[in-house]
Amino acid sequence: MTPGDPEGIGPEICGKLWAKKFGKIKSPPLLFIGAEEPLLKHGIPSHHILAVPDGKPGFQAGWAIEEAFRIIKNGKALALVTGPIHKKRLQAGGYPYEGHTDFLADLAQVKQVTMMMANDQLRVSLATIHCALKEVSMKLNTRELRTTILQTTQALVRFWGIRKPKISVLGLNPHAGEEGLFGTEERRIILPAIRAAQQANPLAKIKGPVPADTYFALKHSDDAVIAMYHDQGLIPAKLLDFKHTVNVTLGLPFIRTSVDHGTAFDIAGKGIADPSSLEAAYDLAIKLAKGSSKNVKEQFKSKVAK
Amino acid sequence: MTPGDPEGIGPEICGKLWAKKFGKIKSPPLLFIGAEEPLLKHGIPSHHILAVPDGKPGFQAGWAIEEAFRIIKNGKALALVTGPIHKKRLQAGGYPYEGHTDFLADLAQVKQVTMMMANDQLRVSLATIHCALKEVSMKLNTRELRTTILQTTQALVRFWGIRKPKISVLGLNPHAGEEGLFGTEERRIILPAIRAAQQANPLAKIKGPVPADTYFALKHSDDAVIAMYHDQGLIPAKLLDFKHTVNVTLGLPFIRTSVDHGTAFDIAGKGIADPSSLEAAYDLAIKLAKGSSKNVKEQFKSKVAK
Repeated sequence: MTPGDPEGIGPEICGKLWAKKFGKIKSPPLLFIGAEEPLLKHGIPSHHILAVPDGKPGFQAGWAIEEAFRIIKNGKALALVTGPIHKKRLQAGGYPYEGHTDFLADLAQVKQVTMMMANDQLRVSLATIHCALKEVSMKLNTRELRTTILQTTQALVRFWGIRKPKISVLGLNPHAGEEGLFGTEERRIILPAIRAAQQANPLAKIKGPVPADTYFALKHSDDAVIAMYHDQGLIPAKLLDFKHTVNVTLGLPFIRTSVDHGTAFDIAGKGIADPSSLEAAYDLAIKLAKGSSKNVKEQFKSKVAK
Repeated sequence: MTPGDPEGIGPEICGKLWAKKFGKIKSPPLLFIGAEEPLLKHGIPSHHILAVPDGKPGFQAGWAIEEAFRIIKNGKALALVTGPIHKKRLQAGGYPYEGHTDFLADLAQVKQVTMMMANDQLRVSLATIHCALKEVSMKLNTRELRTTILQTTQALVRFWGIRKPKISVLGLNPHAGEEGLFGTEERRIILPAIRAAQQANPLAKIKGPVPADTYFALKHSDDAVIAMYHDQGLIPAKLLDFKHTVNVTLGLPFIRTSVDHGTAFDIAGKGIADPSSLEAAYDLAIKLAKGSSKNVKEQFKSKVAK
């Protein structure tokens, strides 16, 4: 676990998570990688801390992520849970990344990764993430959407242990375009991507494009849904269960879950930070690691270790 | 109530609604306007039917809507509940409209109307409706968005009896644009529209633009929300309560609610059509009419009758 920026709420929520989950009894296979002093201060035992060198907060946060990656690459850990970092401070610390996702993708030498939001009621992967709504149509393309679908099916198989995943792919436009009346992306981009992904993974059952509003109107037995843009996926996920929605990165050769909030510098040090999101991220990482330890090790060797 | 296309499921669901609500006991202030024979067949008493002339189904459906408008205009009714019509058949019947909304707006000589989806948990008005997602940004403009907000606040006052409505306006882009990082519509279009609407209606409390995903993550005491596009509003509305979500047209000088399904010709005549949507539309129309009968009459006189 990387607590993130040492001056944000990361160390505090790590301490609260530790106190809640383990108190003074159990000693879990859990290592905190970060600036030592704030972790000690919040009650993490020193033998569960891997201390990073002194330096700027962004440098320490970046170092911790690199170190975590090395440990996972060497087969000593299966999953990474990340606390909040701050983009500008990370960059000022010498790590020229937008955030965890591109940082980890670069370390693992992976070109494309998929952001999934997961809770007990819904798993939704995003085809596009942080871009203006009017750019979504331009950013969508069959090749990358195929990869998003496949990274989702593969994660369901490897990490969730679902042998024949069922997936629905949402349309981009209202009523999924209503046969081309409101947009043609469904026919031009989404349907070909579904067909290509289905061909690449015959065990999976991939449906769509389905109209997003009527999709969420009904109960489904799907294992995951692919949303075309940020709010199309995050509105239903957060509406269904905000507190337990976890950000999972798919397409990396290991498990990575994350808190879904920022460093919250304004309340850091006040003792009032809520560890729920970190706890949900930790719980999901443990669940996925337990269900897939063998798979993950093999996959990592074949994909990353050289 | 206009059952809609006489060969669709409209007359059947009207009959089921009648049987459920009134049976053989009460005689409500409710008039069905449409082709007589299918309504009689489904158990509507003849003294509750205003029969339209014989002709093509689309002609009969269109005539019924015109007749309903005339009755409301003459102060004999407060609310219109519409069953499903079929666009092409309506046009073939001599009524050159896309659907009820532009038909009624034309009759009432209103330039812009607002589509609201309402259930017990959420009332959401749409700033744009049936257009491709990539066109939403182009279609949004401050003047029309201001009208959407004001038609919503006015409806809350007049029809729902909420004296000081609280309204949140959603952002268009992820994180409401994150200070211009993912789009500038929030600053260029939405914020000026909020300010203009707030100025025009000082009693209302209008907030925004707020990020859509975090908005629906939390419980709010707002009386209504303004969504920028179809799925942004309809995903949460249908997720929260699909069966009781009613389409309400705001900006007309009378109450109009509608079923949220089509003519369903494939199951018409089989006796299996579900009247839930019509019932929800009817219940809401009654509630709004009871709460606002005086207001509506006055408003209608001042706005439409000449």
